Parts: sequence; C-alpha cells; structure tokens
Amino acid sequence: MNILDQLIDALRVLPGVGPKSAQRMAYHLLQHNRSGAQRLGLSLEQALSQLQHCARCNSFTEAEICERCSNTQRDPSLLCVVEMPADLAVMEQTHSYGGLYYVLMGRISPLDGIGPRELQLDKLIERASDGVVREVILATNFTNEGEATAHYVGEVLRSRGIKVSRIARGVPVGGELEHTDIGTLAQAMVERRKL
Amino acid sequence: MNILDQLIDALRVLPGVGPKSAQRMAYHLLQHNRSGAQRLGLSLEQALSQLQHCARCNSFTEAEICERCSNTQRDPSLLCVVEMPADLAVMEQTHSYGGLYYVLMGRISPLDGIGPRELQLDKLIERASDGVVREVILATNFTNEGEATAHYVGEVLRSRGIKVSRIARGVPVGGELEHTDIGTLAQAMVERRKL
Repeated sequence: MNILDQLIDALRVLPGVGPKSAQRMAYHLLQHNRSGAQRLGLSLEQALSQLQHCARCNSFTEAEICERCSNTQRDPSLLCVVEMPADLAVMEQTHSYGGLYYVLMGRISPLDGIGPRELQLDKLIERASDGVVREVILATNFTNEGEATAHYVGEVLRSRGIKVSRIARGVPVGGELEHTDIGTLAQAMVERRKL
Repeated sequence: MNILDQLIDALRVLPGVGPKSAQRMAYHLLQHNRSGAQRLGLSLEQALSQLQHCARCNSFTEAEICERCSNTQRDPSLLCVVEMPADLAVMEQTHSYGGLYYVLMGRISPLDGIGPRELQLDKLIERASDGVVREVILATNFTNEGEATAHYVGEVLRSRGIKVSRIARGVPVGGELEHTDIGTLAQAMVERRKL
C-alpha cells in the first residue's frame, strides 16, 4: 500500500468515516491544511502518551488524579456515574450537581461484546466503597443499553450496601444525555429517585 | 487548553467534523483504538513528509513523476483534466481511456476564494504545451463549479492553439427518461449527436 492509501486507510479508524470520507479528508489535509494535519498528528501522539485515566473518576486526565476529583469544594459523599466524559461535561453545565463523578467509559452492550468485565466495574465498586461516598447516582443514558447498565450497576452496588439512585426519567426514553436540553437534565438530577 | 481539548480541536481540521463529532472521535480513539490512533498519527506525518505533487499530472505521489505518467504504454498525446484524484480513479475504472491525466486538485470556486491563480493553471498550460499533447479532454464535474472550470480552462487552452474537448453530458447509460432530471434531459436534447 502506498503512503497516500495508508493515510486514507488510517483515517478510517475514526468512527463514522467510510472510504469516501477518508479519501476526501486525506486530499483536503494534504492540499489545503498541511499545518492542521501536522497539528492533528502531534495532538494524537501527545494525547496517547500523556493522557491517562484519572485514578478516582476514570476520565481522561494529564495528572494521576484530575482537577475535578482534587477539588475539595465538591461534595465527596455523592458519586455520579456517567457513561462518557461528554455526559459529565453536560451534567456540569446544569450547575445542579456539586458531587464527584465516575466515568464508565462505555456502557454494557452485549451486542458489542461489552459486559461488566469489559467495563471494569470492579474499579467503580472500589471507588464507591471508599467509606466517604454515601450515595451513588446513576446517570447513564436512558437508552436500552444505558438502562441495562444502570440496572446492573445498581444491583451490584446495592448488594454491597451502597445507597443507589437513578436520575429521574425526565429525559425522553431513547434520548441521550449529550443531546438533552439543560433544563430537562437539571430536573432529572433534582428528581433522582432511590433504587 | 489541555491535551484532550487540543486533540478534539485538532480533529476539527477534518472536513465535515464539528465539535460533537470531534469529541466522539477523540474518546473513541483514546478508549477503543489506541493503535489505530497511533497509526493515524504516523500516517499523517509520513504523508506530509513524503508525498508530493507529480511534476507531470499534479496528483499525489511518492516519486517526482508518478507511475502512471512514467508508463510508456499510455498515449501521451491525450491529456484528460480532472478535478480530484478520486475522479481520475473512477475514470480509470471505465477502462475507456489510455491517455495521461492532469489533476487540478480543485475547481474554480469564487465563493471559496479559489480562482485560476489558486488552481495554478499555469502548470496545466505548461504541461499541455509540451508539444506532445494533441488534445486536452476536460473531465471536470458537471456541477456549476466544474462547468465554470471547464469553460475557463477551455478558453485559456484554445487561445494557445491547443485542441480541447469536453466529455459528453446526457442521460446516463441504463437511465430511463422518466427518471432523469429535466435539466439533464433538456441538455441531452440540445446536445444530440447525428448518427
């Protein structure tokens, strides 16, 4: 494979990018945005070498423990479990929550071969069992997979005597947090119910 | 800006990738395809440092003159002008053409600030004036921009005494009149050929 085809092929690692898009992207970068392409290459390298999972919330960070988890202003007795960092970000925008987070970095999805083991739920259980956390708030998506994840995680944590709640179903069924309006999401946080 | 945000920002150099997609791509790469991300980074670097424009056809190549232009089996008296390498590729798939190519790497597009100067038409004129080329076949798209490009390029080359033609426009092979758009059909009528 020549170098151009290698680049086109490499671009297909991006989700949602098929052969045609990859081709268009490669031509665009080489022809019109070489400096952007260079920046992208460096950013990838830098991110791969310097980003790691926060030892507490599991999100991406440059430090061992991220800024949010190190913030003593936040309530360490509340732990909100979300699927992805994007969900955490949108939850923060509601300004309705002052506790800490745990990011699953995925969801239980048998069709994709992602079960409890792949999600490394042990890490969450350990985090939730630190003796400081008094309530775990499940804020996974209200999709089938997010619901299944909440159900499973809830069962596991409750069986260990941890108080668990689920954000309210103000979010439309089938909806994703990332695409929910802020007001609805704030309401869902306020109305979380005990499981 | 932290390293994750830098990566998300860098991914937006890709055409058609907005903030949400870039975020999703970054998480996907970091979480699920680190080796793919590494390959992409290396491919970008390699492509930027090793690919250049073929001195004859202007397409991307690792050599000074690409394989196709070096192929003595092809007819050097015919020069087919296309917008992008993808157009060249699809033309080759027809097996209906044995001449050489010139790739504009774009099209005249005033709205995008791309005029004759940005397209470096001098390079095409020089190429077409090598004394060997006897006919330049314009195979730009039949979009407004492609048509404008063909018109302009045609004028310039003809004024230099070079024979210029345009690939035919009409009802597609296998196409039914009933399902052909009116513009194409009208054009096919105007440009009817004597049998």
